[in-house]
Amino acid sequence: MAEETSTVVKEDPLKWVRLAACVVVGLALWYWPTPSGLSLEAWHVFAVFAATIVSFLLRPLPMGLCVLIGLLVLSGTGTTATSALDDWLEDRGLNEESLSYLSRSEAQPETLVEYSPSYNETIKIRETITDKTFKEKVQQSLSAMLRGFGDTTVWLVVAAFFISGGMLESGLGRRVALMMVAKLGKTTLGLGYAIAAAELLLAPFIPSNTARGGGLMMPIVNAINGVLGSDARESPRRAGEYLVLCGAHLNLVTAAMFLTGMAANPLVSKAADDILNVNFDWGMWIKGSIVPGLASLALIPWALYRITKPELTDAHEAQDAIRGELKDMGDWTYEQVTMAGILLVMLVLWATGAVQEWLLGAKLHTTWVAICGVVALVICKVLPYDKLTGNSAAWDTLLWLGGLIAMADALKSTHFVDWFANQVKSSIGDTTGVLAAIILALVYFYSMYAFSMLTGHILAFAGVFFSAAIAVEAPPLLMVALIAYFSNLCGCTTNYSTGPVVIYYGLGYVPIKRWFWIGFLVSLMHLSVWLVLGLMWWKLLGWW
Amino acid sequence: MAEETSTVVKEDPLKWVRLAACVVVGLALWYWPTPSGLSLEAWHVFAVFAATIVSFLLRPLPMGLCVLIGLLVLSGTGTTATSALDDWLEDRGLNEESLSYLSRSEAQPETLVEYSPSYNETIKIRETITDKTFKEKVQQSLSAMLRGFGDTTVWLVVAAFFISGGMLESGLGRRVALMMVAKLGKTTLGLGYAIAAAELLLAPFIPSNTARGGGLMMPIVNAINGVLGSDARESPRRAGEYLVLCGAHLNLVTAAMFLTGMAANPLVSKAADDILNVNFDWGMWIKGSIVPGLASLALIPWALYRITKPELTDAHEAQDAIRGELKDMGDWTYEQVTMAGILLVMLVLWATGAVQEWLLGAKLHTTWVAICGVVALVICKVLPYDKLTGNSAAWDTLLWLGGLIAMADALKSTHFVDWFANQVKSSIGDTTGVLAAIILALVYFYSMYAFSMLTGHILAFAGVFFSAAIAVEAPPLLMVALIAYFSNLCGCTTNYSTGPVVIYYGLGYVPIKRWFWIGFLVSLMHLSVWLVLGLMWWKLLGWW
Repeated sequence: MAEETSTVVKEDPLKWVRLAACVVVGLALWYWPTPSGLSLEAWHVFAVFAATIVSFLLRPLPMGLCVLIGLLVLSGTGTTATSALDDWLEDRGLNEESLSYLSRSEAQPETLVEYSPSYNETIKIRETITDKTFKEKVQQSLSAMLRGFGDTTVWLVVAAFFISGGMLESGLGRRVALMMVAKLGKTTLGLGYAIAAAELLLAPFIPSNTARGGGLMMPIVNAINGVLGSDARESPRRAGEYLVLCGAHLNLVTAAMFLTGMAANPLVSKAADDILNVNFDWGMWIKGSIVPGLASLALIPWALYRITKPELTDAHEAQDAIRGELKDMGDWTYEQVTMAGILLVMLVLWATGAVQEWLLGAKLHTTWVAICGVVALVICKVLPYDKLTGNSAAWDTLLWLGGLIAMADALKSTHFVDWFANQVKSSIGDTTGVLAAIILALVYFYSMYAFSMLTGHILAFAGVFFSAAIAVEAPPLLMVALIAYFSNLCGCTTNYSTGPVVIYYGLGYVPIKRWFWIGFLVSLMHLSVWLVLGLMWWKLLGWW
Repeated sequence: MAEETSTVVKEDPLKWVRLAACVVVGLALWYWPTPSGLSLEAWHVFAVFAATIVSFLLRPLPMGLCVLIGLLVLSGTGTTATSALDDWLEDRGLNEESLSYLSRSEAQPETLVEYSPSYNETIKIRETITDKTFKEKVQQSLSAMLRGFGDTTVWLVVAAFFISGGMLESGLGRRVALMMVAKLGKTTLGLGYAIAAAELLLAPFIPSNTARGGGLMMPIVNAINGVLGSDARESPRRAGEYLVLCGAHLNLVTAAMFLTGMAANPLVSKAADDILNVNFDWGMWIKGSIVPGLASLALIPWALYRITKPELTDAHEAQDAIRGELKDMGDWTYEQVTMAGILLVMLVLWATGAVQEWLLGAKLHTTWVAICGVVALVICKVLPYDKLTGNSAAWDTLLWLGGLIAMADALKSTHFVDWFANQVKSSIGDTTGVLAAIILALVYFYSMYAFSMLTGHILAFAGVFFSAAIAVEAPPLLMVALIAYFSNLCGCTTNYSTGPVVIYYGLGYVPIKRWFWIGFLVSLMHLSVWLVLGLMWWKLLGWW
């Protein structure tokens, strides 16, 4: 047995050191004096969140496992207890006063009914009062921490993995990929630009960047990798790494370019309207983004090509072989036609939100459409049901993304995010004008490291930064433009920033450290394009 | 393509007929006039729930897919919209009046802060007011329908599947199974009684019947099946079907026997105390259950043996071979010792809730302990992480059980359950006394067909039936005993009644129709034991 143990250690000698490092970071923050203005609870959530993010970088254990450990710590220590109890009481319209009345002995079950009509509720309230350990029970409750596993964004990502499975199963991914390579694939660089072109064409019509990047483009990019003989384990640097990075980062550029390029972009417009009285509509959005956006689309494929140096540069020879393969594939099969048809319907449903609102009075939920697509694929026998339950990549993502979203929610509900925003606001007080706007935008950009969702980042910070802009007298239109575009571009920083990034990263072509490093380089490129060319363009437009 | 399609149809000619049958049931109920006292919303939820249950019986498609379709219908038609919006407003302490004030033009963002301190909340409230389509957006929201995927019971079941994977991976399951067969496995019937004995020993100490049946016993039962050469696909009737049914049904009997045999049993005690002033504590519980309980434990293994007629009756020859195999296994490996150690710690943590409450002021959540165990298994390298993400059975269960729990919640939140209980109450009004108690108990028993959780069933109905007991002048102690024991025994009816049943069913040894049929036979046995022997015993105790 002792031998077995030493074998285990030998396999990965630094595993325990790296695990210890994560634990030390967590413990150090946990016991660090709580900054003023912050509850102990919020600080503890942050400590666990930070340790989890560190574990993503050091990777002592699979990400999903690190997230689970974080959730166990938060729920086991009762860190998320108070807010859970408060929610519970608030849900029932109860406050301290009514509780104290109810806890008096004269309160009879009949009286309780007044506060809550159903018998079950009455039982629960009685428990609250009579059972002194209720609060402690809630403390131990995992409910709050498991909530992320029922999140709609998480399930959109899971559905995207399933759809991608259908692309592979049916051979449609391979067919489309072969067609793209046959037409545009003279060089690997050419394929990078092909992705940019496809993204640019789709972005105005598919407001979910996850549906666009993760559901539609990723399966094609992944199939091209297969055709080029670039395997995630065996030969990631042959071409796959480059194309995957192009897919992820170009998706963010096109998300930034259109008001309808990302689902949460309208939230920025609304905040701009509410706080700065700036009407930043579809036309304004594209007017400001067209020049720096096109520049980014031109720059990124080339720059990533220089950074990643794919081994396969001239895809010319491959291209000839591929034309032959395409011929060998023969006619479209039932599965390929059905897959294409279902994708087309999904595309139409995703792209026609405005029409739906006009016809039905409401838009169909992006995740709803995606799950419908998955169900249709299984019913039409394009994708067997056991390819859903057996899709490890999808379930791995459910574990780590779902858990992380629960933690991010806890950061929000414990008001850590509000506190952080206030810190930013007060620390920047001295500088004013354009420089202040730029500093605010930079902080906004890099604060994305602490977020697991572009939408969450926008919801948490966009309005706060607009308020700060007033305080530091930044030019309103400039501020709105910076926050609007950076809201999406900042997703380049991490591998957990938004759906498509998560999905592209999940393909396994790029090791996590390299993803962060290249992401950082891309962030510098974005800043040079949008802060130099962008500022010039916006000056020309008279926005500052 | 036409050929392909016809091939698909040929494969399973009745698939579409069976699918159509489910759809017809759903549509017929949907458009049926809503019974008085019920909202249209509640009725629609019931229609979808009923169609889903019918689909479990007809199986036109995998269960997970049928549940997903149900969720898509409920969220796509906006059936769960009103309650979602109401929840949203209530969460924020808003009512019609304050909303109407806020919607007036003079309400400024600063005013809104009064109602909700954070900026994000303010934005959301503004949206509620200004964006007329908010209600429609909520209608389309999937959130309510995906909530089940973050449910703690669902994740306890998922964790039990993972732990079972560890039992298999480490070889511990095989070792324990070999040991049990070597000692007790002279006959297949003997193994049935071995399961009964193990359940009886464990039940007082492990209050979660899912942890006991699904986490601990199922992996052993499944490993015995392997040793006996009974495969779920190839040879289910050799012995596996019998042992799986023993595992599931005996778990429910021991759950019924002890106040601490099932997590929700204390809820019955509490309701009895609150409504009927009956103090049904640990001692009273076992006093009433000991005679009929032991009779059931004696009867069920034998009766199931006669019903299922396992092909392997005399396990004697196998037993000799198995003793040899046990020898061949050699010494305990690192993985087996670690697995046993982790299981032991989990067992102690599950069994010592009272001590934990005394020491820590709170019990550890059963699911929390289970997930801790899973994490420990992966860290100790007993179970590779990719055996979690690749555990199809676990994820299949997440899909169908999570979805079903969301539907059951919707039945509850739309007050369908309350309405149903009132129907029962009013329809039984004529009969009184012992006979009324028995009728009530029978209705309580078979109403389990509509529930996906014993706990949900108890929460929904136990109190209602106690109230009804007063109305029909049923003997209080008798009523409490019947409801207490039937709360668990009634789980025999379906394959979706409670965690361990779900898990045993998930092994795939018993086709769904057969599960229902045998479950119905077992329900008749339970009724004859507990209503004949039980009533006599309780008369002797002076309970009626």
